[in-house]
Amino acid sequence: MKKTLCILLIPFLACTTHKGNVDDILKTDKEFSAMCMDKGMQEAFIKYAADDVVKLRPGEAPIMNKPDLEKMFAEHAQDGVLKFQWTPVKADIAASGDLGYTFGNWSIFVPSDGTTRDTTIYGNYISIWKKQTDGSWKYVLDGGNSTPAPEN
Amino acid sequence: MKKTLCILLIPFLACTTHKGNVDDILKTDKEFSAMCMDKGMQEAFIKYAADDVVKLRPGEAPIMNKPDLEKMFAEHAQDGVLKFQWTPVKADIAASGDLGYTFGNWSIFVPSDGTTRDTTIYGNYISIWKKQTDGSWKYVLDGGNSTPAPEN
Repeated sequence: MKKTLCILLIPFLACTTHKGNVDDILKTDKEFSAMCMDKGMQEAFIKYAADDVVKLRPGEAPIMNKPDLEKMFAEHAQDGVLKFQWTPVKADIAASGDLGYTFGNWSIFVPSDGTTRDTTIYGNYISIWKKQTDGSWKYVLDGGNSTPAPEN
Repeated sequence: MKKTLCILLIPFLACTTHKGNVDDILKTDKEFSAMCMDKGMQEAFIKYAADDVVKLRPGEAPIMNKPDLEKMFAEHAQDGVLKFQWTPVKADIAASGDLGYTFGNWSIFVPSDGTTRDTTIYGNYISIWKKQTDGSWKYVLDGGNSTPAPEN
Protein backbone atom coordinates (compact mmCIF):
# COMPACT_ATOMS: atom_id res chain seq x y z
CA MET A 1 0.00 0.00 0.00
CA LYS A 2 2.83 2.36 0.85
CA LYS A 3 4.43 1.66 -2.50
CA THR A 4 1.19 2.41 -4.37
CA LEU A 5 0.74 5.68 -2.43
CA CYS A 6 4.29 6.67 -3.31
CA ILE A 7 3.74 5.97 -7.01
CA LEU A 8 0.51 7.96 -6.88
CA LEU A 9 2.19 10.96 -5.31
CA ILE A 10 5.06 11.25 -7.79
CA PRO A 11 3.03 12.60 -10.73
CA PHE A 12 1.11 14.94 -8.40
CA LEU A 13 4.34 16.43 -7.10
CA ALA A 14 5.78 16.71 -10.61
CA CYS A 15 2.59 18.43 -11.71
CA THR A 16 2.54 21.03 -8.96
CA THR A 17 6.22 21.90 -9.15
CA HIS A 18 6.84 25.29 -10.82
CA LYS A 19 8.60 24.49 -14.08
CA GLY A 20 9.47 28.06 -14.96
CA ASN A 21 12.77 29.65 -14.04
CA VAL A 22 12.69 33.38 -14.64
CA ASP A 23 16.49 33.48 -14.47
CA ASP A 24 16.60 31.68 -17.84
CA ILE A 25 14.69 34.54 -19.46
CA LEU A 26 16.77 37.21 -17.70
CA LYS A 27 19.97 35.47 -18.82
CA THR A 28 18.75 35.37 -22.44
CA ASP A 29 17.68 39.02 -22.31
CA LYS A 30 21.16 40.04 -21.06
CA GLU A 31 22.94 37.87 -23.66
CA PHE A 32 20.76 39.48 -26.35
CA SER A 33 21.84 42.98 -25.23
CA ALA A 34 25.51 41.94 -25.03
CA MET A 35 25.34 40.52 -28.56
CA CYS A 36 23.66 43.70 -29.80
CA MET A 37 26.60 45.77 -28.48
CA ASP A 38 29.17 43.27 -29.74
CA LYS A 39 27.79 42.22 -33.14
CA GLY A 40 25.26 44.95 -33.89
CA MET A 41 21.48 45.22 -34.00
CA GLN A 42 20.91 43.25 -37.19
CA GLU A 43 22.64 40.03 -36.08
CA ALA A 44 21.28 40.12 -32.52
CA PHE A 45 17.66 40.98 -33.33
CA ILE A 46 17.50 38.24 -35.96
CA LYS A 47 19.22 35.57 -33.82
CA TYR A 48 16.82 35.98 -30.89
CA ALA A 49 13.61 36.38 -32.95
CA ALA A 50 10.99 33.63 -33.15
CA ASP A 51 9.77 32.73 -36.65
CA ASP A 52 6.39 34.35 -35.94
CA VAL A 53 7.89 37.42 -34.26
CA VAL A 54 6.00 40.71 -34.08
CA LYS A 55 8.24 43.80 -33.78
CA LEU A 56 6.58 47.07 -32.96
CA ARG A 57 8.09 50.31 -34.27
CA PRO A 58 7.12 53.78 -32.98
CA GLY A 59 5.51 55.78 -35.78
CA GLU A 60 5.58 52.86 -38.20
CA ALA A 61 3.55 49.75 -38.95
CA PRO A 62 4.72 46.65 -37.05
CA ILE A 63 6.83 43.89 -38.58
CA MET A 64 4.80 40.69 -38.51
CA ASN A 65 7.28 37.82 -39.09
CA LYS A 66 10.99 36.95 -39.16
CA PRO A 67 11.51 37.19 -42.97
CA ASP A 68 10.15 40.76 -42.88
CA LEU A 69 12.43 41.52 -39.90
CA GLU A 70 15.43 40.27 -41.89
CA LYS A 71 14.36 42.37 -44.88
CA MET A 72 13.95 45.50 -42.71
CA PHE A 73 17.43 45.14 -41.23
CA ALA A 74 18.96 44.45 -44.65
CA GLU A 75 17.42 47.68 -45.96
CA HIS A 76 18.19 49.86 -42.92
CA ALA A 77 21.48 48.54 -41.59
CA GLN A 78 22.97 50.92 -39.02
CA ASP A 79 25.36 48.51 -37.36
CA GLY A 80 28.67 49.89 -36.24
CA VAL A 81 27.21 53.35 -35.74
CA LEU A 82 24.53 53.05 -33.07
CA LYS A 83 25.38 51.47 -29.72
CA PHE A 84 22.16 49.94 -28.44
CA GLN A 85 22.01 48.20 -25.07
CA TRP A 86 19.46 47.49 -22.35
CA THR A 87 18.98 46.24 -18.80
CA PRO A 88 15.94 44.33 -17.56
CA VAL A 89 14.07 45.83 -14.60
CA LYS A 90 11.32 43.25 -14.21
CA ALA A 91 10.62 39.76 -15.54
CA ASP A 92 8.13 36.98 -14.98
CA ILE A 93 7.52 33.48 -16.31
CA ALA A 94 4.47 31.22 -16.47
CA ALA A 95 4.29 28.24 -14.08
CA SER A 96 4.62 25.94 -17.10
CA GLY A 97 7.91 27.58 -18.07
CA ASP A 98 7.01 28.15 -21.73
CA LEU A 99 6.13 31.87 -21.79
CA GLY A 100 7.54 34.93 -20.02
CA TYR A 101 8.47 38.54 -20.41
CA THR A 102 11.10 41.14 -19.62
CA PHE A 103 10.63 44.87 -19.15
CA GLY A 104 13.52 47.28 -18.83
CA ASN A 105 15.48 50.36 -19.83
CA TRP A 106 17.41 50.85 -23.06
CA SER A 107 19.89 53.43 -24.24
CA ILE A 108 21.26 54.18 -27.69
CA PHE A 109 24.53 56.06 -28.09
CA VAL A 110 24.53 58.01 -31.35
CA PRO A 111 28.08 59.18 -32.08
CA SER A 112 28.91 62.49 -33.70
CA ASP A 113 28.82 62.49 -37.51
CA GLY A 114 31.08 65.54 -37.64
CA THR A 115 28.26 68.08 -37.71
CA THR A 116 26.32 66.81 -34.66
CA ARG A 117 27.42 66.12 -31.09
CA ASP A 118 27.50 62.68 -29.47
CA THR A 119 23.99 61.94 -28.18
CA THR A 120 22.45 59.27 -25.96
CA ILE A 121 18.74 58.56 -26.12
CA TYR A 122 16.78 56.51 -23.58
CA GLY A 123 13.67 54.37 -23.39
CA ASN A 124 11.75 51.37 -22.12
CA TYR A 125 11.11 48.00 -23.74
CA ILE A 126 8.78 45.03 -23.44
CA SER A 127 9.94 41.65 -24.76
CA ILE A 128 7.71 38.57 -24.64
CA TRP A 129 9.67 35.32 -24.70
CA LYS A 130 8.52 31.87 -25.78
CA LYS A 131 10.44 28.65 -25.23
CA GLN A 132 11.16 26.94 -28.53
CA THR A 133 11.04 23.19 -29.22
CA ASP A 134 14.86 23.06 -29.02
CA GLY A 135 14.76 24.55 -25.49
CA SER A 136 16.02 28.00 -26.51
CA TRP A 137 14.14 31.21 -25.71
CA LYS A 138 13.11 33.52 -28.56
CA TYR A 139 11.17 36.78 -28.43
CA VAL A 140 7.74 36.58 -30.05
CA LEU A 141 6.84 40.22 -29.43
CA ASP A 142 9.02 43.25 -28.84
CA GLY A 143 8.24 46.92 -28.48
CA GLY A 144 9.00 50.01 -26.49
CA ASN A 145 9.22 53.75 -26.47
CA SER A 146 11.56 56.61 -25.70
CA THR A 147 11.65 58.23 -22.27
CA PRO A 148 13.48 61.20 -20.76
CA ALA A 149 17.05 60.53 -19.54
CA PRO A 150 17.15 58.73 -16.16
CA GLU A 151 17.22 61.13 -13.21
CA ASN A 152 20.02 59.38 -11.33
CA MET B 1 -4.58 -3.86 -11.08
CA LYS B 2 -6.73 -2.13 -13.70
CA LYS B 3 -8.09 0.18 -11.02
CA THR B 4 -4.59 1.11 -9.81
CA LEU B 5 -3.48 1.83 -13.38
CA CYS B 6 -6.50 4.03 -13.88
CA ILE B 7 -5.77 5.98 -10.68
CA LEU B 8 -2.17 6.35 -11.76
CA LEU B 9 -3.14 7.72 -15.15
CA ILE B 10 -5.54 10.42 -13.92
CA PRO B 11 -2.92 12.81 -12.54
CA PHE B 12 -0.72 12.27 -15.60
CA LEU B 13 -3.55 13.19 -17.94
CA ALA B 14 -4.47 16.20 -15.80
CA CYS B 15 -0.85 17.26 -15.85
CA THR B 16 -0.41 17.10 -19.62
CA THR B 17 -3.70 18.79 -20.47
CA HIS B 18 -3.22 22.40 -21.66
CA LYS B 19 -4.79 24.51 -18.94
CA GLY B 20 -4.63 27.78 -20.83
CA ASN B 21 -7.51 29.07 -22.93
CA VAL B 22 -6.42 32.02 -25.02
CA ASP B 23 -10.08 32.94 -25.59
CA ASP B 24 -10.30 33.99 -21.92
CA ILE B 25 -7.59 36.59 -22.50
CA LEU B 26 -9.09 37.77 -25.79
CA LYS B 27 -12.50 38.12 -24.11
CA THR B 28 -10.99 40.20 -21.30
CA ASP B 29 -9.07 42.37 -23.76
CA LYS B 30 -12.29 43.09 -25.70
CA GLU B 31 -14.29 43.80 -22.52
CA PHE B 32 -11.51 46.20 -21.44
CA SER B 33 -11.80 48.13 -24.74
CA ALA B 34 -15.61 48.17 -24.54
CA MET B 35 -15.44 49.55 -20.99
CA CYS B 36 -12.92 52.17 -22.09
CA MET B 37 -15.37 53.44 -24.74
CA ASP B 38 -18.35 53.21 -22.37
CA LYS B 39 -16.94 54.45 -19.07
CA GLY B 40 -13.74 56.22 -20.10
CA MET B 41 -10.01 55.52 -19.83
CA GLN B 42 -9.63 56.18 -16.12
CA GLU B 43 -12.21 53.66 -14.91
CA ALA B 44 -11.24 50.95 -17.43
CA PHE B 45 -7.46 51.19 -17.07
CA ILE B 46 -7.73 51.04 -13.28
CA LYS B 47 -10.26 48.18 -13.19
CA TYR B 48 -8.14 45.88 -15.37
CA ALA B 49 -4.75 46.76 -13.82
CA ALA B 50 -2.88 44.33 -11.54
CA ASP B 51 -1.58 45.78 -8.27
CA ASP B 52 2.02 45.58 -9.55
CA VAL B 53 1.16 46.95 -13.00
CA VAL B 54 3.78 48.62 -15.18
CA LYS B 55 2.35 51.11 -17.71
CA LEU B 56 4.70 52.40 -20.38
CA ARG B 57 4.16 55.90 -21.77
CA PRO B 58 5.84 57.18 -24.95
CA GLY B 59 8.18 60.07 -24.13
CA GLU B 60 7.62 59.72 -20.39
CA ALA B 61 8.88 57.57 -17.51
CA PRO B 62 6.79 54.43 -16.93
CA ILE B 63 4.21 54.08 -14.16
CA MET B 64 5.37 51.30 -11.83
CA ASN B 65 2.33 50.35 -9.71
CA LYS B 66 -1.44 50.72 -9.42
CA PRO B 67 -1.51 53.59 -6.87
CA ASP B 68 0.68 55.66 -9.23
CA LEU B 69 -1.62 54.74 -12.13
CA GLU B 70 -4.63 55.96 -10.13
CA LYS B 71 -2.78 59.18 -9.28
CA MET B 72 -1.83 59.76 -12.94
CA PHE B 73 -5.42 59.37 -14.12
CA ALA B 74 -6.73 61.60 -11.31
CA GLU B 75 -4.31 64.34 -12.40
CA HIS B 76 -4.80 63.95 -16.17
CA ALA B 77 -8.44 62.96 -16.57
CA GLN B 78 -9.53 63.23 -20.20
CA ASP B 79 -12.60 61.06 -20.01
CA GLY B 80 -15.56 62.09 -22.10
CA VAL B 81 -13.34 63.77 -24.67
CA LEU B 82 -11.11 61.06 -26.14
CA LYS B 83 -12.64 57.90 -27.59
CA PHE B 84 -10.05 55.18 -27.16
CA GLN B 85 -10.68 51.65 -28.42
CA TRP B 86 -8.68 48.69 -29.65
CA THR B 87 -8.89 45.30 -31.34
CA PRO B 88 -6.55 42.38 -30.63
CA VAL B 89 -4.67 40.95 -33.63
CA LYS B 90 -2.70 38.21 -31.90
CA ALA B 91 -2.76 36.53 -28.50
CA ASP B 92 -1.11 33.62 -26.75
CA ILE B 93 -1.25 31.95 -23.34
CA ALA B 94 1.14 29.73 -21.38
CA ALA B 95 0.34 26.01 -21.08
CA SER B 96 -0.25 26.55 -17.36
CA GLY B 97 -2.92 29.15 -18.09
CA ASP B 98 -1.55 31.82 -15.73
CA LEU B 99 0.22 34.22 -18.14
CA GLY B 100 -0.54 35.47 -21.63
CA TYR B 101 -0.51 38.47 -23.91
CA THR B 102 -2.48 40.38 -26.48
CA PHE B 103 -1.14 42.51 -29.32
CA GLY B 104 -3.34 44.69 -31.49
CA ASN B 105 -4.37 47.97 -33.03
CA TRP B 106 -5.80 50.98 -31.22
CA SER B 107 -7.43 54.19 -32.35
CA ILE B 108 -8.22 57.39 -30.50
CA PHE B 109 -10.85 59.76 -31.80
CA VAL B 110 -10.06 63.33 -30.75
CA PRO B 111 -13.10 65.52 -31.36
CA SER B 112 -12.91 69.12 -32.52
CA ASP B 113 -12.45 71.69 -29.75
CA GLY B 114 -13.85 74.44 -31.96
CA THR B 115 -10.49 75.51 -33.33
CA THR B 116 -9.24 72.08 -34.49
CA ARG B 117 -10.81 69.47 -36.73
CA ASP B 118 -11.92 66.02 -35.59
CA THR B 119 -8.86 63.76 -35.66
CA THR B 120 -8.26 60.04 -35.31
CA ILE B 121 -4.84 58.72 -34.34
CA TYR B 122 -3.73 55.10 -34.62
CA GLY B 123 -1.26 52.72 -33.01
CA ASN B 124 -0.30 49.29 -31.70
CA TYR B 125 -0.37 47.92 -28.16
CA ILE B 126 1.11 45.07 -26.13
CA SER B 127 -0.71 43.92 -23.00
CA ILE B 128 0.66 41.16 -20.77
CA TRP B 129 -2.03 39.45 -18.71
CA LYS B 130 -1.68 37.51 -15.47
CA LYS B 131 -4.38 35.38 -13.87
CA GLN B 132 -5.17 36.61 -10.38
CA THR B 133 -5.92 34.47 -7.33
CA ASP B 134 -9.66 35.18 -7.75
CA GLY B 135 -9.54 33.80 -11.32
CA SER B 136 -9.79 37.18 -13.05
CA TRP B 137 -7.25 38.40 -15.64
CA LYS B 138 -5.42 41.68 -15.03
CA TYR B 139 -2.76 43.36 -17.12
CA VAL B 140 0.67 43.46 -15.47
CA LEU B 141 2.39 45.34 -18.30
CA ASP B 142 0.97 47.58 -21.01
CA GLY B 143 2.61 49.67 -23.68
CA GLY B 144 2.46 50.65 -27.31
CA ASN B 145 3.17 53.27 -29.90
CA SER B 146 1.53 55.32 -32.62
CA THR B 147 1.50 54.12 -36.24
CA PRO B 148 0.31 55.60 -39.52
CA ALA B 149 -3.39 55.18 -40.31
CA PRO B 150 -4.27 51.67 -41.55
CA GLU B 151 -4.03 51.33 -45.34
CA ASN B 152 -7.34 49.52 -45.79
